[in-house]
Amino acid sequence: MRTRPLKVALLGCGVVGSEVARIMTTHADDLAARIGAPVELAGVAVRRPSKVREGIDPALVTTDATALVKRGDIDVVVEVIGGIEPARTLITTAFDHGASVVSANKALLAQDGAALHAAAEEHGKDLYYEAAVAGAIPLIRPLRESLAGDKVNRVLGIVNGTTNFILDKMDSTGAGYQEALDEATALGYAEADPTADVEGFDAAAKAAILAGIAFHTRVRLDDVYREGMTEVTAADFASAKQMGCTIKLLAICERAADGGSVTARVHPAMIPLTHPLASVRGAYNAVFVESDAAGQLMFYGPGAGGAPTASAVLGDLVAVCRNRLSGATGPGESAYAALPVSPMGDVVTRYHISLDVADKPGVLAQVATVFAEHDVSIDTVRQQGKDGEASLVVVTHRASDASLSGTVEALRKLDTVRGVASIMRVEGE
Amino acid sequence: MRTRPLKVALLGCGVVGSEVARIMTTHADDLAARIGAPVELAGVAVRRPSKVREGIDPALVTTDATALVKRGDIDVVVEVIGGIEPARTLITTAFDHGASVVSANKALLAQDGAALHAAAEEHGKDLYYEAAVAGAIPLIRPLRESLAGDKVNRVLGIVNGTTNFILDKMDSTGAGYQEALDEATALGYAEADPTADVEGFDAAAKAAILAGIAFHTRVRLDDVYREGMTEVTAADFASAKQMGCTIKLLAICERAADGGSVTARVHPAMIPLTHPLASVRGAYNAVFVESDAAGQLMFYGPGAGGAPTASAVLGDLVAVCRNRLSGATGPGESAYAALPVSPMGDVVTRYHISLDVADKPGVLAQVATVFAEHDVSIDTVRQQGKDGEASLVVVTHRASDASLSGTVEALRKLDTVRGVASIMRVEGE
Repeated sequence: MRTRPLKVALLGCGVVGSEVARIMTTHADDLAARIGAPVELAGVAVRRPSKVREGIDPALVTTDATALVKRGDIDVVVEVIGGIEPARTLITTAFDHGASVVSANKALLAQDGAALHAAAEEHGKDLYYEAAVAGAIPLIRPLRESLAGDKVNRVLGIVNGTTNFILDKMDSTGAGYQEALDEATALGYAEADPTADVEGFDAAAKAAILAGIAFHTRVRLDDVYREGMTEVTAADFASAKQMGCTIKLLAICERAADGGSVTARVHPAMIPLTHPLASVRGAYNAVFVESDAAGQLMFYGPGAGGAPTASAVLGDLVAVCRNRLSGATGPGESAYAALPVSPMGDVVTRYHISLDVADKPGVLAQVATVFAEHDVSIDTVRQQGKDGEASLVVVTHRASDASLSGTVEALRKLDTVRGVASIMRVEGE
Repeated sequence: MRTRPLKVALLGCGVVGSEVARIMTTHADDLAARIGAPVELAGVAVRRPSKVREGIDPALVTTDATALVKRGDIDVVVEVIGGIEPARTLITTAFDHGASVVSANKALLAQDGAALHAAAEEHGKDLYYEAAVAGAIPLIRPLRESLAGDKVNRVLGIVNGTTNFILDKMDSTGAGYQEALDEATALGYAEADPTADVEGFDAAAKAAILAGIAFHTRVRLDDVYREGMTEVTAADFASAKQMGCTIKLLAICERAADGGSVTARVHPAMIPLTHPLASVRGAYNAVFVESDAAGQLMFYGPGAGGAPTASAVLGDLVAVCRNRLSGATGPGESAYAALPVSPMGDVVTRYHISLDVADKPGVLAQVATVFAEHDVSIDTVRQQGKDGEASLVVVTHRASDASLSGTVEALRKLDTVRGVASIMRVEGE
């Protein structure tokens, strides 16, 4: 074993960074044995240097992250700051100064993954980011290595623990969205400003990363259709139950049936209770992968949290250190397929639509005609009357999102349709 | 991209081999793009050369596997023959002649993994074998790479599809073992001689491989305690249901609580219906991994079959080809921890014991005394009387297997105990 240590610069020492530092210290012997050389924490860049950080030598702490990545003797920069800047500049500076990079930064990778990969490749260095998607769950490595000889057609997953906690709570207790969110906040599962989670931004970034790897195609955050889950109601859950379904916020990356294009989207959807994703509880994540040869695979585990995310970071750190010792690099960006990313209108799926309608004869015929005119085939209809008003719940066969949108627009113009109470996609069948 | 192809020798062209050849042909462009060079099928060694093999150039087919691996121009040997010999000699010969190896051979790896790894390392070549455990499910790579920075404490899995099919059938229909086995055979899920599956040999080989990787310790097939599932009865399933459990054949690899030793075992066990493994149906496999930092992860998918196993083989083939192009090798054997493998007697778990006893006062007191004398603490007891006979179902708290064995031996000597109807471990709590 080499005795000269590999030097690691840690950017960020919050929930994840402090766990990375702790494990690097407490498991130093194991890491050395697995890498073939010791790893040394050479510096820790933080915003608040005065904060006491248990187990970290204060002499290593600096506020000057730029100087740290420019030192020239750093082998691996671990970036767990998050956000676009200064993380982006620090990572490219790290490559410029000879380091490889391990990052947990989903937002940055979803936005600028291609440029960062190019910078890594230009310098012959590694860029690893298992922790950016679904925390501790090995997902990036299985997709880009284990399934490298297969053709992935679909990735369907619960990749945000906060929203899964909220939806699970609504499902199991009948609570409304606000009540479930309040509980998630009180228990620390939701941040004070939950926008990134509940509006689907976090899941959309992960969907972009997963779609890019799965389809060997560049998919950016802007390419991902995104719909949050703030408008999911207790009534939606009641409807889902009647169909033998529950509701999850799903990230869905699909190859079109003809193979010529891909789509990526995040939105709440009904899935059958018999689907393995339906039983993913609390803040857990799970991702379903469908491929030509392997068939259906599922990966399940904690999608966030300091220690789980640190586990993923350290797995990458070991791989990157091993690569440095052998003078090799791991797999870089694979975007050779360069498939077009289709807009949401091209997505084909099923829909569950609740309409408030006038309670009089002929309404169903009118509504059914509108569906037919837009080429959306109806699977089931359920009518419920109440005091001169009535509700009509329509579940469709598979149709394009554009056709469905056209249908809904036309339905809204009918005198007999008082309102469209909810539209939800039905997935996982 | 390099234009000179990497040459692959395929040993075996049965269910898995023919799928490997098919995908190598139909996905040649994708494989070339992902590897950075084309891959060419340079030869296929088979036993019956006259058999027509669709899509394979007859000129490539040979019965002389030894000559094929000795050619000297082969980059990667893919071994999907199975069994110990001639696979072992062919693999070492392949290393001697400069090739790297991808194998799906669990029996060989469980028996001689250390020697094969040593041969690979001596020649600076790769030995990959994702397909040896749980078919298409990425498991070897996540364990030895993704979790390389973590400490795995437990691997608990359903790693044999045949037995899971049989047990699932018994659970859902109330069928007995023989009836369920007959159906599995008729449907092609069980082989004509099902011994390797139903007696747990197949699962034990996988347990040895998983334990070795998870604990960085050599674990051989002989180190694995093995108990088949041929004696599981419909009555056991009824008892399991009363406890809110089902029965699965589990492979369990554990680090002792003090961290100083490991165990590996395969046996039928009751697990709670709420455990994610309980809902693994049919011939699917799933493996639960518990580690210090990552917490609980689960990997799920098809554990056997031509195409799924070929997916795993091809993922390895891409990795090994990439390594050859870059002049590097992937992770080799990691056995530095060299922990002792403890015997079954040291395993600590819970037990479900059904006793046929005399239906008279004082029996429970006698039985309870025997448990107490052997330091086995009782969790629950259920008594059922019937015509002068009675049954007593005891569920214990955690105790060592040695203590439990001592208890059972002493129980058998009691006059009031007519027989021990079943003993089953309770896991996953």
